[in-house]
Amino acid sequence: MAENPSAKRQRSSKDVPYELIYWPGLPGRGEHVRLLLEEAGAEYTDTAHIEGGVKTVLAQIDGKYLGDELNPPPLAPPILKHGDLVISQTPNILLYLGPRLGLAPKISGDDDGIYHVNALALTALDGLSNEAHDTHHPVATGLYYEDQKEESKRKAKDYTTNRLPKFFGYFEGVLKSKTSGEGPWLYGGSLTYADLVLFQCIDGLKFAFPNALKRLEESGDYKGLFELYDAVKERPKIKEYLASDRRQKYSQGIYRHYPELDEE
Amino acid sequence: MAENPSAKRQRSSKDVPYELIYWPGLPGRGEHVRLLLEEAGAEYTDTAHIEGGVKTVLAQIDGKYLGDELNPPPLAPPILKHGDLVISQTPNILLYLGPRLGLAPKISGDDDGIYHVNALALTALDGLSNEAHDTHHPVATGLYYEDQKEESKRKAKDYTTNRLPKFFGYFEGVLKSKTSGEGPWLYGGSLTYADLVLFQCIDGLKFAFPNALKRLEESGDYKGLFELYDAVKERPKIKEYLASDRRQKYSQGIYRHYPELDEE
Repeated sequence: MAENPSAKRQRSSKDVPYELIYWPGLPGRGEHVRLLLEEAGAEYTDTAHIEGGVKTVLAQIDGKYLGDELNPPPLAPPILKHGDLVISQTPNILLYLGPRLGLAPKISGDDDGIYHVNALALTALDGLSNEAHDTHHPVATGLYYEDQKEESKRKAKDYTTNRLPKFFGYFEGVLKSKTSGEGPWLYGGSLTYADLVLFQCIDGLKFAFPNALKRLEESGDYKGLFELYDAVKERPKIKEYLASDRRQKYSQGIYRHYPELDEE
Repeated sequence: MAENPSAKRQRSSKDVPYELIYWPGLPGRGEHVRLLLEEAGAEYTDTAHIEGGVKTVLAQIDGKYLGDELNPPPLAPPILKHGDLVISQTPNILLYLGPRLGLAPKISGDDDGIYHVNALALTALDGLSNEAHDTHHPVATGLYYEDQKEESKRKAKDYTTNRLPKFFGYFEGVLKSKTSGEGPWLYGGSLTYADLVLFQCIDGLKFAFPNALKRLEESGDYKGLFELYDAVKERPKIKEYLASDRRQKYSQGIYRHYPELDEE
């Protein structure tokens, strides 16, 4: 690298709380970041709970923040600030936080575990978060749901019938694979951030498609997956967090409950 | 980590060529991996050019490969094998290869550059590859285009009118930001794999939506973006590669040219 801007960074600046920049009023993609910080008991601030939080988010996007000497501009929230570092893209923020918070193998030349955890997180985010969002916005994110309702019905039917069993079956296979190890976790016999991502996706899907999720759970084909879900939910810090008012309620975000999109 | 399986890995096993496992007959997501390997002049094999390549791909997916002592099973190609490591998910493979091939800052506690390059690659893959694919499969990936043609027309119109300018504008802003540095590149004044990802996305979009891309290029609003595209295309190794028969032709993959989905 000719002139890597990160070389200018002051490392001492990292002894500060994490700052999550995300919309108030819904869990959204920011929730994946929160769950890592909560499970680790890390100190952080959250624009969802700060007066003027929306303004702070808006000031970072749509070309209003042009980056600085160290950081390119982000496209959209969630954004994580840590000292003088500013990064975006959910799986990227998780990749940064995971090893620091003890929720993924350290990134080092001697250990490739992080690439497995990262792949599992990317797969869950793709199939169970992005695709879940697309069920109510199959035509255009800029249009209202009501303006793409018929297309949404077709897409949601395919999603609950074909896509969810495909992804659930994949993760069930991962939980049975040799690298899953002991206990309910996806990789290496201990909790990683991939488990937290999968938990949040299943939680959101239970809200959006309660009937479809009930059918899938009762089929007994995905026992490992639902055991993982329960195991995360019972982690003491997660349990405390979910009961707190720091946990946002589902609303008009990724996971929406439209009865006409669920199974009967 | 309690029992990280990667700790069992033999490091000496990495002194072998890379193995790309991807469908023959189209560039697809595998193309992003190829461009890194080609630019770096790395030794690699490619199932797209091996007799029985399709069989090799099929043997890895849909639960037919259950992982091993070191690796969880992958969901889908592209898959990269390197010695006894097997990883999947395009941005994850790029993250692994980038620093090794001199196409991203090294991953280390002293340098956060990789998180910027990773975010830029994720953004390009999301907005310019995944969304481009969804224009011809807005309802269901398992249905033919012909069975979702009307929905495709609506989605493609939104894509070329609203989404492409949004993402192109974002990357143009990144190219003007302070961390872009000298020259045509996105980050740090030298070529990174984020530039190669962006090149491939623009190349695919030029094939899929020639009229829309012509309009966007001629608007003059995205000069930096198209300069980056030309600069990648003229890299000696990339130029040789693009002219070779190792480069797959566009076909029924992510980027498809349906005149009815393009602008007039």
